[in-house]
Amino acid sequence: MNEINNYVKANEDRFLDELFELIRIPSISSLPEHKEDMYRAAEKWKEILLAAGADKAEVMETNGNPVTYGEKIIDPDAPTVMVYAHMDVMPVDPLEKWKTDPFEPVVKDGKIWARGADDDKGQSFMHAKAFEYLVKSGKLECNVKFLIEGEEEIGSPNLPDFCEKHKEMLKADIILVSDTSMIAPDVPSITTGLRGLAYWQVEVTGPNIDLHSGLFGGAVANPINVLSKMIAQTMDDDGRILIPGFYDDVVEVSAEERAKMAKAPFSLDDYKKSLDLKEVFGEKGYSTNERTGIRPTFDVCGIWGGYTGEGAKTVLPSKAYAKISTRLVPNQDHNKIAKMFVEYFESIAPEYVIIKAEYLHGGPSYVCPIDLPAYKAAEKAFKDVYGKDPVPVRSGGSIPIIATFEEVLGIKSVLMGFGLGSDAIHSPNENFPLEQFYNGIRTIPLFYKYFAEEMKK
Amino acid sequence: MNEINNYVKANEDRFLDELFELIRIPSISSLPEHKEDMYRAAEKWKEILLAAGADKAEVMETNGNPVTYGEKIIDPDAPTVMVYAHMDVMPVDPLEKWKTDPFEPVVKDGKIWARGADDDKGQSFMHAKAFEYLVKSGKLECNVKFLIEGEEEIGSPNLPDFCEKHKEMLKADIILVSDTSMIAPDVPSITTGLRGLAYWQVEVTGPNIDLHSGLFGGAVANPINVLSKMIAQTMDDDGRILIPGFYDDVVEVSAEERAKMAKAPFSLDDYKKSLDLKEVFGEKGYSTNERTGIRPTFDVCGIWGGYTGEGAKTVLPSKAYAKISTRLVPNQDHNKIAKMFVEYFESIAPEYVIIKAEYLHGGPSYVCPIDLPAYKAAEKAFKDVYGKDPVPVRSGGSIPIIATFEEVLGIKSVLMGFGLGSDAIHSPNENFPLEQFYNGIRTIPLFYKYFAEEMKK
Repeated sequence: MNEINNYVKANEDRFLDELFELIRIPSISSLPEHKEDMYRAAEKWKEILLAAGADKAEVMETNGNPVTYGEKIIDPDAPTVMVYAHMDVMPVDPLEKWKTDPFEPVVKDGKIWARGADDDKGQSFMHAKAFEYLVKSGKLECNVKFLIEGEEEIGSPNLPDFCEKHKEMLKADIILVSDTSMIAPDVPSITTGLRGLAYWQVEVTGPNIDLHSGLFGGAVANPINVLSKMIAQTMDDDGRILIPGFYDDVVEVSAEERAKMAKAPFSLDDYKKSLDLKEVFGEKGYSTNERTGIRPTFDVCGIWGGYTGEGAKTVLPSKAYAKISTRLVPNQDHNKIAKMFVEYFESIAPEYVIIKAEYLHGGPSYVCPIDLPAYKAAEKAFKDVYGKDPVPVRSGGSIPIIATFEEVLGIKSVLMGFGLGSDAIHSPNENFPLEQFYNGIRTIPLFYKYFAEEMKK
Repeated sequence: MNEINNYVKANEDRFLDELFELIRIPSISSLPEHKEDMYRAAEKWKEILLAAGADKAEVMETNGNPVTYGEKIIDPDAPTVMVYAHMDVMPVDPLEKWKTDPFEPVVKDGKIWARGADDDKGQSFMHAKAFEYLVKSGKLECNVKFLIEGEEEIGSPNLPDFCEKHKEMLKADIILVSDTSMIAPDVPSITTGLRGLAYWQVEVTGPNIDLHSGLFGGAVANPINVLSKMIAQTMDDDGRILIPGFYDDVVEVSAEERAKMAKAPFSLDDYKKSLDLKEVFGEKGYSTNERTGIRPTFDVCGIWGGYTGEGAKTVLPSKAYAKISTRLVPNQDHNKIAKMFVEYFESIAPEYVIIKAEYLHGGPSYVCPIDLPAYKAAEKAFKDVYGKDPVPVRSGGSIPIIATFEEVLGIKSVLMGFGLGSDAIHSPNENFPLEQFYNGIRTIPLFYKYFAEEMKK
């Protein structure tokens, strides 16, 4: 512990400088104009891995953005850990809400502020530096592989295919991921569940052109009114999703497990205060943590149509659009749900509009058993650094590729996240506390140590 | 008739050149960046009026955009006609839908294509040229005043005050307006009713920042879902507006008048075909023409919130917005309705969001009696040019200032519009048929002639 502490202390500034170089690349995977930045980020990762001590590292093509793969094989018989992370980030809009340039990281109030500071550049970079320490100190007891992709934020559309093609190269005993968060700096936790995801774009077309709302209003259906009504028909006042069959495959969590979950430290008052909410809203009969942890959800992520400029324009628009997503829990099949939603939306569409509901992407949910050797190793590593046993928690977030790894490669993942709920990932002013960043670099080498021990048992 | 026909024929090209100079000024009143263009348009109108033969013309300040006023007084005892028109135009978005530059007019297929080609630059310019003809030919039998404002498309917020201040200057026997349309080139009509208007902007705030839809989705109300539901709660499946008291002051039109209206030539099939609609939608129990002519309506003119870019972003947005308008019929008070809507929206807002419903502008409806001398003059003028008695129709559109003229100045208006339903006013590819433009210039001098005759009776 002392040695790694000293190593981090001695290299703090360099670590930040190097991380900032990575953050400055605006690798937004959902915007085609950043295609070149995806290649820059991939080359940067190759450089990072080689500098940290990888035997080899290369930028590999997929049908979409490139993947950076690197490895250090110390002994074919040693256990192999594959670090999975992503180099791509979310868009930055609304840009005007950012207090600093999202791609020019600054340190203020003990935190790094930038897009990707946490998700996932900050968190992934901890692995590079933990690896560097282990190589330099000669303490590496596992083979290490790095799989850094560039499409996580758009649902990893090409990684399953990449995994299929490179099964041999990607063989490992466990996949280690830092792309989640912990409850609080003094309440370490490990994510044992991830929700699945399905994401659609819906287009409602009324008349073939925008019309004068006075001359046509009242006689021609307004696509915004229609879309609003259709959205309203997807959820009742108790927060229950109204798509027929939606809950059919949801496994109810036992009263016992719910009782255990209820013991996790949580203040609803603080939660509401931090979000400036008078009241929370969610599915009736479930607590806030249950609503994000064990229940599926339905959210409109974006909506637009008609006149959205300043002042008043009296128009009856031709089209209205929405981006819609659900989060799914274990046993819900995202492909089945994807179809179910499209059928439902088509079925409730009135005859005076034309509906186009397109499934954009999705992925299954994931559960990590807490008796896995790798889970135990993570538990011990956290305890050494944070002084407490980490709490196992189910996250509301989704990393669809984690379930795919299990399906395609047959490898489980351990989600050792060092983010915090206040990191504003996917939002303006994303940030990552320096303490979490450095603690991550301290914790990860211990994981390798304990994992090697567990695998010998 | 022959003389004016010859005059129009001889000057066709010049009329277009002059009109195009006016159209090229992008006088969009709702966008602050076009403030200077409003002054350019006002100066242009001063030039147009003086060139056409006005004794005087000046650009006058208001608390908003300037007004151009001009007059020619031939005899204090002669009847006075005041032409009201507006120099401002609607925004042009979505710009990508335009086939030509909205502010670079072109003539194609016998039509002028440009923003303002009809509404109201094309139509107002007919008055300048009809006036020019009357002055040049020595046939002017009325005093003429021109009141050209720059805020009609944003609800004329400063014109009522301007009228109050300049009551003496604006004295007239009738106000003549060409800012409406007729049924078809072979079915002349005069607008005898205008709907009132109320326009709001609504903001729904959930959490104080955009959130990750996975980590918070299901536990925090989504403002887009909430706004959609609130919009859905404003109208039932029969197209009835659900705001309590909304219909209280609506005067039901008699069965006799409805029967008369039903005789106006109208093909629902053609209507649907022209808009690419499988079906129309509106208040149950009323025909399409009744829905726009004699019934109030409720339309969302714009909606936006969350992620609206390309691809998928999983976000639970902090805010959602809508621009909402109603069209009102005679006897409905727009100020009362304005308050009613805000109260209703606040009352249906759930406790887990914050609502801001702001009334942007509005105005009362208007009815023109068909026994008015000026109406009779307009009727005769149309018959001379179009060969048929014009049909009196109630328009679905609103020109709130028309009712204000009656209230403040005590002057009725006659709405002699030469636009067509296919002119796409307020939409991309606005256009105005040359034939209507030239017919307008032919018809207007006849109105002056017949009006002078009627006033002598």
